Amino acid sequence: MKDLGDCIFGFVGLGLMGGALARSLRSGKIIGKKGKIFAFDINSETLRTACDSGTIDEGFADPGIMLKQCDVVYVCLNPLSGFRFMETYMNAFQSGSLITDIAGVKKNIVTRIENILRSDIDFIPGHPMAGSEKEGFAHAHECSFSGKNYILVPLKKNRPENLSFMKKIIRQMGFAKIIETDAETHDMKIAFTSQLCHILAASLIDCESDISITDFGGGSFEDLTRIAMINAPMWTELFLENAEPLISRMEKFEKSFAGFKQMIQASQKEKLCDTLTGVRKKRIAMSDYQRA
Amino acid sequence: MKDLGDCIFGFVGLGLMGGALARSLRSGKIIGKKGKIFAFDINSETLRTACDSGTIDEGFADPGIMLKQCDVVYVCLNPLSGFRFMETYMNAFQSGSLITDIAGVKKNIVTRIENILRSDIDFIPGHPMAGSEKEGFAHAHECSFSGKNYILVPLKKNRPENLSFMKKIIRQMGFAKIIETDAETHDMKIAFTSQLCHILAASLIDCESDISITDFGGGSFEDLTRIAMINAPMWTELFLENAEPLISRMEKFEKSFAGFKQMIQASQKEKLCDTLTGVRKKRIAMSDYQRA
Repeated sequence: MKDLGDCIFGFVGLGLMGGALARSLRSGKIIGKKGKIFAFDINSETLRTACDSGTIDEGFADPGIMLKQCDVVYVCLNPLSGFRFMETYMNAFQSGSLITDIAGVKKNIVTRIENILRSDIDFIPGHPMAGSEKEGFAHAHECSFSGKNYILVPLKKNRPENLSFMKKIIRQMGFAKIIETDAETHDMKIAFTSQLCHILAASLIDCESDISITDFGGGSFEDLTRIAMINAPMWTELFLENAEPLISRMEKFEKSFAGFKQMIQASQKEKLCDTLTGVRKKRIAMSDYQRA
Repeated sequence: MKDLGDCIFGFVGLGLMGGALARSLRSGKIIGKKGKIFAFDINSETLRTACDSGTIDEGFADPGIMLKQCDVVYVCLNPLSGFRFMETYMNAFQSGSLITDIAGVKKNIVTRIENILRSDIDFIPGHPMAGSEKEGFAHAHECSFSGKNYILVPLKKNRPENLSFMKKIIRQMGFAKIIETDAETHDMKIAFTSQLCHILAASLIDCESDISITDFGGGSFEDLTRIAMINAPMWTELFLENAEPLISRMEKFEKSFAGFKQMIQASQKEKLCDTLTGVRKKRIAMSDYQRA
């Protein structure tokens, strides 16, 4: 691999995350004089805006022409679209190039990609944990990577120098932590920290019909349901592609929730207070761990 | 009632909310030269800090001595302690004084207080919706009232001029909206926007034992569980004193949650996507309503 600053980066999809990663590459002074940032997007207006703002050097209507020139490719599409893109354009990647993605589910997607992957390109699955309820390139500048986690799911075949290279980019983009794990662990953990949270938010909104209920909000409701402004097609894919770990997590949650319900119904003051005290301690320990 | 600026205000309890309200009275230049802010708290250190910082003019170890001098009294204790305080000190209030509280449940508490209320004092139940997971006077300066709701639950006997007076204070404190409602409606709505949210957050933490799970967090989990750093004794009271509306809300939520589970288990892609789209629209409409 060339020096990082001399690489040509290609973004497939310049939505919220593709846009945010490209912006961060550009503004982080990672790209030197010989380096370039290219992008392909089905929305030509987005490519024009990204060019005009200096985020990318060139936009492409034909991904094949772009991929041929790229040393590093970020596939920033919804999970299934990302797989389909790689399937369709597998022959277009430059030999020796490094490909990564941002899909929020890994096992199903990575297995499919591994089955069609050329042996002369290296694919390192990734998941930048820095999304938002917003969508599209227009909101990319609102994504902050400071304090955020970037999960890598390296494959056995990955070349160590490419993995180091990838981590160098992530650190330079400003992410706080790089977590390396396998696809199965990723999906199990994400089912809890991300997918279950989105279903809780969606259920909260689903079970209330009165729009003016926010007159009685004090911040908690707003914080808990911000992510209910959900990208429906993407999250439908994420939930269904990770159904098994997600259902298992939902059932664990239901059990805890039912426990609280029972304590309230039975007026078990002491048990309820003890359980809440335990929850408080655990959540504080999580914050402490995160900061450490 | 005297002019607002000439009143002597008494705070019973100078914790997070009592402290924040007192600070806001002081910094809002609401109090004139003849006006005073007094406070009683069982923690003498808190009273000293509040005096030294100029938040209050005088701290009292004996609430009886303070109450005798106050035109307006804010009872800022946990719900049951608030009732017990008023019961114990009912004869100490100045004749003609205006009392308010901050309890997060109303029907049970207000009914009890009404039963013991002297006819020469006016009690206007209130609920400033501006709490936080933090506790104590030390964090009072972190409470912002900007954009927040203040719920009033006026009683039939309340003197209209006192209600107007109360609203004037709230507006001057910087709250965005004043909502007037009855105790039953308050408790039903709050069961949803506040209590259910706290139980969801607590359940999320309760059902996970791995502290390092935050390595896989991307913001949603952190936002949803911040309120799990819960004031356990206070929320135990709030949940148990509002058990009936809360259980009813929990059951509505369970139904929506189970609906999502079923759609995921049955891989109902279209139905899931449509439901999420509906949720998204409803949540956006809620934000629009709130801003309007």
